[in-house]
Amino acid sequence: MKLYDFALAPNARRVRVFMAEKRLEIPVVEVKVRDGAMFEEPYRSMNPFAVVPFLELDDGTCIGESVSICRYLEELHPAPSLMGRDPRERALIDMWNRRVELDGYLPVMHSLRNADPAFRGRVVPGTRNDLVQFPEIAERGRDMLLILLERLDAQLSDGRFLAGGTFSIADITGYFMILLADRTGVPIPDDRPNVARWYEDVAGRPSVRDSS
Amino acid sequence: MKLYDFALAPNARRVRVFMAEKRLEIPVVEVKVRDGAMFEEPYRSMNPFAVVPFLELDDGTCIGESVSICRYLEELHPAPSLMGRDPRERALIDMWNRRVELDGYLPVMHSLRNADPAFRGRVVPGTRNDLVQFPEIAERGRDMLLILLERLDAQLSDGRFLAGGTFSIADITGYFMILLADRTGVPIPDDRPNVARWYEDVAGRPSVRDSS
Repeated sequence: MKLYDFALAPNARRVRVFMAEKRLEIPVVEVKVRDGAMFEEPYRSMNPFAVVPFLELDDGTCIGESVSICRYLEELHPAPSLMGRDPRERALIDMWNRRVELDGYLPVMHSLRNADPAFRGRVVPGTRNDLVQFPEIAERGRDMLLILLERLDAQLSDGRFLAGGTFSIADITGYFMILLADRTGVPIPDDRPNVARWYEDVAGRPSVRDSS
Repeated sequence: MKLYDFALAPNARRVRVFMAEKRLEIPVVEVKVRDGAMFEEPYRSMNPFAVVPFLELDDGTCIGESVSICRYLEELHPAPSLMGRDPRERALIDMWNRRVELDGYLPVMHSLRNADPAFRGRVVPGTRNDLVQFPEIAERGRDMLLILLERLDAQLSDGRFLAGGTFSIADITGYFMILLADRTGVPIPDDRPNVARWYEDVAGRPSVRDSS
């Protein structure tokens, strides 16, 4: 098994934190993303969606998508659990991970790509083209993040972590959402104390501290 | 177990097609979405994210998010498999479902909500507020869909379904993406014959025909 990634990419860091929590060591191949290496062979055939990270199995199968990689690793190494120990818990963690990812992480990622000049010419992940940056997409990403943070603050008034008492993949996704938001100039608002407390808690974990 | 949904919503239809493929019958409660019923009790406490569908278990637990509901049903009723029969297959189906959902289904859903006057005042799912519709988000949704359809056409040159030879949840997500795109005025382009062939194949399944 080999993991192809790019150390600075938030999606690559999500998978590395997941691996560190499970104490998994998998050989890593650094892809020269800034040189566009993922658009060239051998990477293009391995992952036609031209993003990192992706996981190559020993039979040559390539699994893309950070969460799908984590799902595969969770099945092979179920302890410590990061995605749930029974069908009900797995469904609830999946639900919280999706809420964070679809309502926050992705809108903020698109926000950054539509605002930061460094992403000109590659506004949509895995593409190189002349699509322009739209400030409106950056604005809507902030709107959606603030709606989500209000909901997460309510959820976190009840439990230590996003899916309840146990650290899970939803917290990893949430942590990197806050980091990305910070890069777009949106810190955690003062009136979301539970989110702020949770973020500091997650940021202090060795797996997270060592992932940068 | 009870499923709370709204017959016309694409996300509710995704779950109903999934259930029909497995011949599952679960009591359905129709939520009066157009009257804003999901912002009122008892629904607000059951699902604070104020969207449908969600699944209520016999112990009162509520599972939101279409794919998380399907994941739970798949674990309870693994045959016929729609999410994979072993870790490798599950990871690959999850990957294709995510590619379709993140790069197509969601951008097109946001496109529709930012273009159709019927969605004024509820541009972001699960909210009622004064966020304006941005034509730029509608445009970018179309851009992203066309990029994805080129990639799916290549994938479908090799296999009957999106994740290979077997019908899966990725095909259900993909089918409703095409339906949503059609509502935004973007039909399958003429130069994507494999997508067109696959779409007709999926549309002809009894589970899909009977879901509307």
